[in-house]
Amino acid sequence: MKRKVHDIIYEADTKHGKLFDVILIITIIISIILVMLESVESIDKKYHDILNFSEWIITILFTIEYIARIASIKKKSSYIFSFYGIIDFLATIPKYVSIFVVGSHALIALRALRLLRVFRILKLGRYLGASKSLHTALIASRIKISVFLFSVIVLTIILGTVMYLVEGPTNGFTSIPKSMYWAIVTLTTVGYGDIAPQTPLGQFIAGLVMILGYGIIAVPTGIVTSEMAKSEEPKLHTNTQHCTYCSAHNHLDNAKYCHKCGEKLYHE
Amino acid sequence: MKRKVHDIIYEADTKHGKLFDVILIITIIISIILVMLESVESIDKKYHDILNFSEWIITILFTIEYIARIASIKKKSSYIFSFYGIIDFLATIPKYVSIFVVGSHALIALRALRLLRVFRILKLGRYLGASKSLHTALIASRIKISVFLFSVIVLTIILGTVMYLVEGPTNGFTSIPKSMYWAIVTLTTVGYGDIAPQTPLGQFIAGLVMILGYGIIAVPTGIVTSEMAKSEEPKLHTNTQHCTYCSAHNHLDNAKYCHKCGEKLYHE
Amino acid sequence: MKRKVHDIIYEADTKHGKLFDVILIITIIISIILVMLESVESIDKKYHDILNFSEWIITILFTIEYIARIASIKKKSSYIFSFYGIIDFLATIPKYVSIFVVGSHALIALRALRLLRVFRILKLGRYLGASKSLHTALIASRIKISVFLFSVIVLTIILGTVMYLVEGPTNGFTSIPKSMYWAIVTLTTVGYGDIAPQTPLGQFIAGLVMILGYGIIAVPTGIVTSEMAKSEEPKLHTNTQHCTYCSAHNHLDNAKYCHKCGEKLYHE
Amino acid sequence: MKRKVHDIIYEADTKHGKLFDVILIITIIISIILVMLESVESIDKKYHDILNFSEWIITILFTIEYIARIASIKKKSSYIFSFYGIIDFLATIPKYVSIFVVGSHALIALRALRLLRVFRILKLGRYLGASKSLHTALIASRIKISVFLFSVIVLTIILGTVMYLVEGPTNGFTSIPKSMYWAIVTLTTVGYGDIAPQTPLGQFIAGLVMILGYGIIAVPTGIVTSEMAKSEEPKLHTNTQHCTYCSAHNHLDNAKYCHKCGEKLYHE
Repeated sequence: MKRKVHDIIYEADTKHGKLFDVILIITIIISIILVMLESVESIDKKYHDILNFSEWIITILFTIEYIARIASIKKKSSYIFSFYGIIDFLATIPKYVSIFVVGSHALIALRALRLLRVFRILKLGRYLGASKSLHTALIASRIKISVFLFSVIVLTIILGTVMYLVEGPTNGFTSIPKSMYWAIVTLTTVGYGDIAPQTPLGQFIAGLVMILGYGIIAVPTGIVTSEMAKSEEPKLHTNTQHCTYCSAHNHLDNAKYCHKCGEKLYHE
Repeated sequence: MKRKVHDIIYEADTKHGKLFDVILIITIIISIILVMLESVESIDKKYHDILNFSEWIITILFTIEYIARIASIKKKSSYIFSFYGIIDFLATIPKYVSIFVVGSHALIALRALRLLRVFRILKLGRYLGASKSLHTALIASRIKISVFLFSVIVLTIILGTVMYLVEGPTNGFTSIPKSMYWAIVTLTTVGYGDIAPQTPLGQFIAGLVMILGYGIIAVPTGIVTSEMAKSEEPKLHTNTQHCTYCSAHNHLDNAKYCHKCGEKLYHE
Repeated sequence: MKRKVHDIIYEADTKHGKLFDVILIITIIISIILVMLESVESIDKKYHDILNFSEWIITILFTIEYIARIASIKKKSSYIFSFYGIIDFLATIPKYVSIFVVGSHALIALRALRLLRVFRILKLGRYLGASKSLHTALIASRIKISVFLFSVIVLTIILGTVMYLVEGPTNGFTSIPKSMYWAIVTLTTVGYGDIAPQTPLGQFIAGLVMILGYGIIAVPTGIVTSEMAKSEEPKLHTNTQHCTYCSAHNHLDNAKYCHKCGEKLYHE
Repeated sequence: MKRKVHDIIYEADTKHGKLFDVILIITIIISIILVMLESVESIDKKYHDILNFSEWIITILFTIEYIARIASIKKKSSYIFSFYGIIDFLATIPKYVSIFVVGSHALIALRALRLLRVFRILKLGRYLGASKSLHTALIASRIKISVFLFSVIVLTIILGTVMYLVEGPTNGFTSIPKSMYWAIVTLTTVGYGDIAPQTPLGQFIAGLVMILGYGIIAVPTGIVTSEMAKSEEPKLHTNTQHCTYCSAHNHLDNAKYCHKCGEKLYHE
């Protein structure tokens, strides 16, 4: 019995296991949509009771699943403190907490993290491979990225202070932290426009910052791209030489015999 | 007769076929400009009748063309349900529907899709080749892009919820879906500024999100660039097979003889 | 005499020619700054006469230079209709036209194009080489860029129409051309925020457009980068083999003899 | 004694040296946070005296450190006029200046530059290596970047003037410099929206500028990426020299013997 439950819950290869996972993903998506709808005031006013009731049902289902996961596994701690175990716990608890603390139930949106389970249903290997490739590229360039981020932070502090002195509180740059917020908004080319320089000098400096940010954006792209290109398979170089016997081409650069007929290749 | 019509309509190599296609493209462009002009209130007030009349003429021309296309082809379904067949239908029908449903005739802008025919007139091969190269690069990286998009969606849900809790309805984050809209606007560095964080904590989180978005933008660029660079030079696949005689390795996948000593290779 | 003038004006290698070019660039920069200052109302009010007088002096100097260039060259048309000839004419004429047409003298800013002469003073070759490298990369990818731009235009028309129907004139999307303007502002991640979707459906579509634009921005980058990487010098592959006699390394893959001492290399 | 102080201050390998550096970095961070807090009016009102007092303590500590650095080194000028020496001076002096000049003490934020010392504590080599790799890529592409920046400036002047003429002062484009500010804000896709085109023609031109900026952003990315990819694998330079015996070419620059036949190469 216990083993059967384990197979259904933890494995995605069997028919029942796959069905369980699909139902789980759908339940998670419904649960997230419920929280979203509840946050929209006009909808919440009309359907508060239905939404709340549905959420409780899903929370109870998740609680049962969570207990079943713990019960059906031998080494309990290996699930409870695993990545998915912690997410499952964080996704279930907010609704219970919301009885005591008002508003906290919006944290149910943490259930979005449970969606990562979707990779289990799909052809795991391929997707994880692609995800790993992204991951490897990021890991390999972590020092470069650290240096880059550190430079951006130092730059933000300097720029924030300069603009605070140049523009001053009357033009929206009320404090250095706020000016730093502006510097990040500008350097990253987001540009809300809620704070924008008003004085000619401020606009001139802002112009320089933007062109700088324009150049800076090239750096992380360059890092990730070159890292990604490297992680690809090593390139092999062939030449345009044709075999004199069978005229096969595409020989490797250091090939001495034809790979198709075995004839000796004569390098010009 | 039927065959002659077929040649003119479907082929772009003959003099008549080319002329037909050029006239068609011009008609499509005029038709799109008409719809645009009609949507501008001040122009519509003055020239409503002329615009409406011109549109009806073009619609009738397109209807005749559509019928001619069906009539002149032997296997009707191969056109009707083809990519261009469906576009042609969708581009012709809205004007007729607009008699019954007010406002729907603006959908005539779907005629923009008919512009894709322009590739037929130009040197087809080269352009399709370039378009194919873009297409191949996108297809080859579809798994990586899926993983990337999926991560962005999960991130958007989490960020949307956090900002909804931090900023709240009084600062414009009226609901989780609206907060998610803000998260996308910020992550993609669009930054309208219609919703912007007001509290210091909100601005701090927003700053982190922007720097994150700054790094994230490098990922799709890295994917497409490395994919494109790869699609340039033809890939050569070698296997790990070793020659039984000289144990040379790195043989091309279709190699039959060792490129170093000429010994026959035995594929497992 | 005529030849001497020609050497000074047209050549940048001689002492006098270089001096002439440096003075020319400085005059151009002063001229551009004058136009800018004149456009600032508060400055123009105070110093209108001085600014106007200085501009006339520079215009007369440019006129003399223009006449000297024509006079000192044998084949007049080769200068008059050259790239620089046309720019020189366009940079001189607006001030004269401004006597008859009010406001047109702001076109003097076209003198900015004359700044391109700066490349003549600097080490021409290297800069032109770099500029050529950019140029080659752009030329080589012109078909891909055309396909890309064409797709963006078709996408803009479709998106503009859809948003015009969804949001409507009450939310700022007053016409299809204006909606298309919004679509470009959003797709390119500029995001002014002067027009922004107000309805939930509009914001949902806008979110999709932004993520799309996020992906699309990768395409031109990918094109230019891979084109640029290609234009670099062909890579040479060496192996880690050491010469048995002099232990020199970094031999080319197909090397048979040591490039340092001439000893025969024994490939493992 | 003097030598011991020197070892503690200047070296990061010994236990005491490392401890000193860690305390230094923490003090710098505290000092920066103090300046930020002081710039926030509401916090400054409440805690002005505490903040001011803490700043004086840190300034005195930095002064002692600065004097100790000068005292403990033999060749004083090698520290005073070094990169770090100048930063240390600039980071200490503003607080003293603030006694005489009101507001100038905000320049203490220059202390952010002192944070660069953090690289000394961390595994110096690796981080400097990564930073060097970024630096090399930027240096190697400095000509291309100059050409690019120069083109952007010329473009900005032209665009600024055109938009000033098209939109005019009534729509926010009050002067050419302000229009140039708009051009930079748009080209870099920042897009504050504080100045935005209002006329249909202005919006059409703005649309073109955005698509242009969209393409232009690809150029610095392409430059840095291709430069970075190049800096990864060591470059090998071959010349066009042919072997006098077997006329093999593609010899490495420092090759003395032909890699194919072993014949001695005669460098011209």
